[in-house]
Amino acid sequence: MTDFFAGISPVTYSPDAPADQLAYRHYNPDEVVAGKRLEDHLRFAVAWWHSFAWPGGDPFGGQTFERPWFGDTMALARLKADVAFEMFEILGQPYYCWHDADIRPEGASFAESNRNFEEIIDYLGEKMQAQGTRLLWGTANLFSHRRFMSGAATNPDPEVFAWSAATVKNCIDATQKLGGENYVLWGGREGYETLLNTDLKRERAQAGRFLQMVVDYKHKIGFEGAILIEPKPQEPTKHQYDYDVGTVYGFLKEFGLEGEVQMNIEQGHAILAGHSFEHELAMASALGLFGSIDMNRNDYQSGWDTDQFPNNVPEVALAYYEVLKAGGFTTGGTNFDAKLRRQSLDPADLIAAHVGAMDVCARGLKAAARMLEDGGLEAARDARYAGWQQNVAQGWLRSATLEDIEAAVAAGEIDPQPRSGRQEVLENYVNRFV
Amino acid sequence: MTDFFAGISPVTYSPDAPADQLAYRHYNPDEVVAGKRLEDHLRFAVAWWHSFAWPGGDPFGGQTFERPWFGDTMALARLKADVAFEMFEILGQPYYCWHDADIRPEGASFAESNRNFEEIIDYLGEKMQAQGTRLLWGTANLFSHRRFMSGAATNPDPEVFAWSAATVKNCIDATQKLGGENYVLWGGREGYETLLNTDLKRERAQAGRFLQMVVDYKHKIGFEGAILIEPKPQEPTKHQYDYDVGTVYGFLKEFGLEGEVQMNIEQGHAILAGHSFEHELAMASALGLFGSIDMNRNDYQSGWDTDQFPNNVPEVALAYYEVLKAGGFTTGGTNFDAKLRRQSLDPADLIAAHVGAMDVCARGLKAAARMLEDGGLEAARDARYAGWQQNVAQGWLRSATLEDIEAAVAAGEIDPQPRSGRQEVLENYVNRFV
Amino acid sequence: MTDFFAGISPVTYSPDAPADQLAYRHYNPDEVVAGKRLEDHLRFAVAWWHSFAWPGGDPFGGQTFERPWFGDTMALARLKADVAFEMFEILGQPYYCWHDADIRPEGASFAESNRNFEEIIDYLGEKMQAQGTRLLWGTANLFSHRRFMSGAATNPDPEVFAWSAATVKNCIDATQKLGGENYVLWGGREGYETLLNTDLKRERAQAGRFLQMVVDYKHKIGFEGAILIEPKPQEPTKHQYDYDVGTVYGFLKEFGLEGEVQMNIEQGHAILAGHSFEHELAMASALGLFGSIDMNRNDYQSGWDTDQFPNNVPEVALAYYEVLKAGGFTTGGTNFDAKLRRQSLDPADLIAAHVGAMDVCARGLKAAARMLEDGGLEAARDARYAGWQQNVAQGWLRSATLEDIEAAVAAGEIDPQPRSGRQEVLENYVNRFV
Amino acid sequence: MTDFFAGISPVTYSPDAPADQLAYRHYNPDEVVAGKRLEDHLRFAVAWWHSFAWPGGDPFGGQTFERPWFGDTMALARLKADVAFEMFEILGQPYYCWHDADIRPEGASFAESNRNFEEIIDYLGEKMQAQGTRLLWGTANLFSHRRFMSGAATNPDPEVFAWSAATVKNCIDATQKLGGENYVLWGGREGYETLLNTDLKRERAQAGRFLQMVVDYKHKIGFEGAILIEPKPQEPTKHQYDYDVGTVYGFLKEFGLEGEVQMNIEQGHAILAGHSFEHELAMASALGLFGSIDMNRNDYQSGWDTDQFPNNVPEVALAYYEVLKAGGFTTGGTNFDAKLRRQSLDPADLIAAHVGAMDVCARGLKAAARMLEDGGLEAARDARYAGWQQNVAQGWLRSATLEDIEAAVAAGEIDPQPRSGRQEVLENYVNRFV
Repeated sequence: MTDFFAGISPVTYSPDAPADQLAYRHYNPDEVVAGKRLEDHLRFAVAWWHSFAWPGGDPFGGQTFERPWFGDTMALARLKADVAFEMFEILGQPYYCWHDADIRPEGASFAESNRNFEEIIDYLGEKMQAQGTRLLWGTANLFSHRRFMSGAATNPDPEVFAWSAATVKNCIDATQKLGGENYVLWGGREGYETLLNTDLKRERAQAGRFLQMVVDYKHKIGFEGAILIEPKPQEPTKHQYDYDVGTVYGFLKEFGLEGEVQMNIEQGHAILAGHSFEHELAMASALGLFGSIDMNRNDYQSGWDTDQFPNNVPEVALAYYEVLKAGGFTTGGTNFDAKLRRQSLDPADLIAAHVGAMDVCARGLKAAARMLEDGGLEAARDARYAGWQQNVAQGWLRSATLEDIEAAVAAGEIDPQPRSGRQEVLENYVNRFV
Repeated sequence: MTDFFAGISPVTYSPDAPADQLAYRHYNPDEVVAGKRLEDHLRFAVAWWHSFAWPGGDPFGGQTFERPWFGDTMALARLKADVAFEMFEILGQPYYCWHDADIRPEGASFAESNRNFEEIIDYLGEKMQAQGTRLLWGTANLFSHRRFMSGAATNPDPEVFAWSAATVKNCIDATQKLGGENYVLWGGREGYETLLNTDLKRERAQAGRFLQMVVDYKHKIGFEGAILIEPKPQEPTKHQYDYDVGTVYGFLKEFGLEGEVQMNIEQGHAILAGHSFEHELAMASALGLFGSIDMNRNDYQSGWDTDQFPNNVPEVALAYYEVLKAGGFTTGGTNFDAKLRRQSLDPADLIAAHVGAMDVCARGLKAAARMLEDGGLEAARDARYAGWQQNVAQGWLRSATLEDIEAAVAAGEIDPQPRSGRQEVLENYVNRFV
Repeated sequence: MTDFFAGISPVTYSPDAPADQLAYRHYNPDEVVAGKRLEDHLRFAVAWWHSFAWPGGDPFGGQTFERPWFGDTMALARLKADVAFEMFEILGQPYYCWHDADIRPEGASFAESNRNFEEIIDYLGEKMQAQGTRLLWGTANLFSHRRFMSGAATNPDPEVFAWSAATVKNCIDATQKLGGENYVLWGGREGYETLLNTDLKRERAQAGRFLQMVVDYKHKIGFEGAILIEPKPQEPTKHQYDYDVGTVYGFLKEFGLEGEVQMNIEQGHAILAGHSFEHELAMASALGLFGSIDMNRNDYQSGWDTDQFPNNVPEVALAYYEVLKAGGFTTGGTNFDAKLRRQSLDPADLIAAHVGAMDVCARGLKAAARMLEDGGLEAARDARYAGWQQNVAQGWLRSATLEDIEAAVAAGEIDPQPRSGRQEVLENYVNRFV
Repeated sequence: MTDFFAGISPVTYSPDAPADQLAYRHYNPDEVVAGKRLEDHLRFAVAWWHSFAWPGGDPFGGQTFERPWFGDTMALARLKADVAFEMFEILGQPYYCWHDADIRPEGASFAESNRNFEEIIDYLGEKMQAQGTRLLWGTANLFSHRRFMSGAATNPDPEVFAWSAATVKNCIDATQKLGGENYVLWGGREGYETLLNTDLKRERAQAGRFLQMVVDYKHKIGFEGAILIEPKPQEPTKHQYDYDVGTVYGFLKEFGLEGEVQMNIEQGHAILAGHSFEHELAMASALGLFGSIDMNRNDYQSGWDTDQFPNNVPEVALAYYEVLKAGGFTTGGTNFDAKLRRQSLDPADLIAAHVGAMDVCARGLKAAARMLEDGGLEAARDARYAGWQQNVAQGWLRSATLEDIEAAVAAGEIDPQPRSGRQEVLENYVNRFV
């Protein structure tokens, strides 16, 4: 045992715990909601990068966290893993996620980096087996090192394309080895800083080809998890090609990848793209692309990706409502791609942030389940579209022409009358459950 | 002749006109640029709605303009048309655009509205023939009347779908009759106010079916113009389905409409969607969707659609650079979907706004043409991607697998070195032309 | 009795009412919280303009509401008042608010408008006396009529300044006559559309002088209510001089009006200015300017003033926490400057929107009171600043010089060590109460 | 001589230089514009931090620049200074600026840091004397080190207040020693991350006291430069107390510092606060606070501080128009607080960026001077307010009461008629000069 979390006991479900005790007040993993244990609904995951690799910097200041495992040796990488699994033990969440660069020191060459990586993967595998924590997804960091400054798959330099492909291959292998349930691609540098030096069409084709190779490889090795793309409109680039769910849908159609790739949707990225979280979830569901979520909010008054732990139950409830309507998670889960504020220096802050977030999610999911069970919202929605059940309306959708319809309208048979959309009534309805 | 523009003479190209004289200082329609007359490059159009139908209101105040043609009679509709064509005579621009609701009074029934419409269409046809002004595009207003408050094609009430279909049929007919070169759909209410009462998937299917009917009808009647969709992310709705070019692309693919529909791209809408104008143009070009433009800017500090006349030459030059790279306009053109500020009450303001905008566009297009002719930017771009001309790189794009590539990288054959993106150098380059 | 709200009974506190019954589930006016009845804490007011005068238009569409009282006659103005007081009877909220233009038809002259106004004021007075509803505040509409298109007090035309001054005089008189507890100024056109035609300094001086006259007049007639300014950064203008609380503070200092004028703070306006609602409240409190609130939210993804009814309890709780810390309302209250969505056509929507909002506010205020009573947040805050209680630190604030302090630091006596800001812990704390 | 800029010759004014030659095409320092040399108008300064200390990182990636002087030794600090002055020699700009942390390595103690600082200051002093480059301003970096994570003057820990005070004292001393013409404070951490742990009023008082000490010290040592505050609304904090010019004005009034402190205004910060650059300049001028500018733009589609070199002449012209109307710079100047894009790796990029920016500024200032000389804009503005020259209007501003004015309006003597604001005409006017 390391002493990083000295004095912090495993967190349990204790709704009446004293105010200053770390406890789940709402998240009882074994509580059955809508026919499933809460743990199996929510499928919480801790993100390695924010919790264990991020030093606390921002564009105007450097490291604030002083973690005993910071540094570039294999021994420190193992220490980091030890602390991580101690945190998993304390939280009791079932999953975690990593980028390659989070868990292993960069080597002097690709081969050395990979040896480091494989060694750590084995180390993680042992710990997972011992402890039971599973891998929700693995991913490759193709954005931090300077070699990726102009993109990974979409780099003007084919050697970076190759480096990226090789890296992803090894990350998928490692994800499979650890029984990971998904593999994620976030293309943080797959975009541009200025159109003046960018060939949009060519870069898009590179990205399409890259993703085809990923899908081919998945099938070849029999990786059973889902391939997920995580949309984001910008930051760090001025424009990222995977802008939002709607954009990625067109991209998948263009490169014949529909049905092969799903979405990992993040609240913060949705906000940056001008959408609510529930919008992106509903859109993914409507397009058959729903996969997994990153449950971390953006500050509404900040124009960058603040990656904060969720804290607003009504908002979270609307998100899980869409998740449940989409059938809930299959391979996906609730990943906290969230970082402490850089002033939150203490080990206890790291635990408290996750505990609070898990409670918020539990409250949200339970409220969502109650709304679905109640059915009032779905009934109201069905009633609103009831006119479309009529034969004539169905005919319009199936086979009519503009002329057919125009003839009927011009004949005066049709004179639509507005009906209330009842938005406030429905908002009140939601507030009865959150 | 009406006396609305009394005292204002036709505006001519007079680069050295005195400061207070209305004159084109840069727009000489007959100037040949890159092998084509400026008029044929720019294909300017006046928008009927903003110039002749908008009363000057905003959400906090009502009408400021007092136009003698305001009112709901056929006589006033004809007066409005008279003044409009007088303005076209003064400006000398080759095109104009309308919505049905701009040009005819609403009748008590669909049939009466349509009779009004047809009568005015004939009146416009006579004036066009007499004067030579052509129709860039027609479109249907499916958003102002209260019957459209919950959408047109995407309305929960199939009767509104029908009314909308009938309206579009008649508007396409009228567009064809007047020799219009495009037909535009802007789905200002095709979206939602709240997800709580919305069936996203159903509404999307309605929109898809509607557009298929439009395309079928176009072919049936042999309309030779282009069908254009105008993307906008929101306003008046919270979310509009035609969010941006990337989103519409996916939509067209989904409903089998690729190749049938192109984009009418507006600077203001691009800004609202988080994009630069040139981004949306470049994206449309990359996806084979480029059609036409609405050349009206948004205030960068305002979060709504301000529809201002363009006034920044360097920005306009970057837009036309993308237009020229896409091959220039075929059926499309430069429509000023721009409105006077509501304090700009005088007839002379209406003329001055268009004259200033046309000069700004002329400067922008000429700068863009010079940049293309110089070729420095394209040469820099080609150089940046030169590595992709090598055989091995082309092989990666064509047929390699992740394993093939990983083997090469792991063998140490590949070690990419960052190269400068030279953004500032390229920005300086542009500034030598604008 | 009119029949507008036919079939809708007075809404009462019935926490266990059936799902589809209009009832207060959380707002019990007589419940005592922190030593005061809820009604006396919250001091709810209905806004006449949004509820009874707004036709349901937006920049892309016209009237959707069809109210029997729409029109410009005195008889209709009386009918409107009848319906309004019927709604007050149904809701049971203690207050309401008006602009002059909401309640009386515009006359052909200032004098005629004023006669209409005085007649309606008397009519309202009778109804108030009969029913017990009181006036939270009155205000003048100096933005809707075209005469105000270039501003009211800040207009380039002194005649508009005069018209505005005369209007405000009469509105203050009427407010006093009805026992109004505050008089509000929202300067929706006190700003500019373009700097190119604006003399910022002169307009600021006009606004300062205008406000001085208002304060002088208040004292002269012995009006005992508060004078309140409502900040907003923009919309309808590009820039409004009363940008936010911090800006107004400087303005009041400049014109010697500190202590004479307080703030009416709106969530939606705070958001448009880049602030959270609680920020503006805390700032007003810190500067001694807190007065009243407009409790209506903006959509976070829309860049204009959406004026929606509040629906997020955690957010509302943070706002009332600041209100309670500032000592609660004295003359101020909770005004719903909120409008139905334009699709919410039914009379029941108007009631439901207010009922839902009042419940949300009641939940928020009760949570805020519990947090204050618990004291955990304030204790944590005090602990964070505890170092400032030491003598040496107090000396630095009182009387030290840079040299004194530098000597101590250079001598190595001082070496500050970062301590956790505990943001997530405090967010969890809040979530235990909301 | 170092070899960092090997092969790059001093840049000269050569309007007809070949396309690929680094040359000033518009900036001729000796050109006389409006009675003053361009160099004396523009007073260009290079920012040490972005050009020589920034490693090219962003929130998603680390260092991209590999500069031979990166590291923490005094020898490297001297090498950095050598290269900097070589760049000053190449550019020929008259000024530069620094933070303490940019130019000296951090020591193990305050005292050691200060010894390093003083040694480097002497080194800079020698180089300045030899070369003639002057110091526009010095400033203290009170935001990068982790000790400042919770603020500097506004820190909850008084020891950080003390450390900050001591640091500023030494930075003012150094600025004076080098003949610096201003001293700047940018309070990047003077704000909050969450209101939950913040005492707004107390922190504001700390900031006020701190600034009073700075002003006292300035007078005590006879520093003849200006004290400048640089407003910014947020980033890195959620809220910064020096939000914008209007906010700082109130702050200065509150703490009796009006007349003692002026503004250093940055385009990028103005944008983040919801203002145009020219707005903040006009506001500062109207309030008597104009001091200096940071001439670096923000990307309009990015929500964070992108600090890019200016490249849009029309925008820059409007900024200098306000500068010239405010009387031009006295102690202030044009500082490029701008950083290369992180992909712009080459030494030549650093030169090209500055050369391009200086040319853009020269074009902007010359256009502004021509507009002022022409006088058309000012004449139009005066005409718009001409009504205020009348006796009766002047009386209203001087001494009237609401009753006086109401009597006149009610008597029907006053009936204001809207007049065109002519925004488009004025925008066209500007376009004749840019």
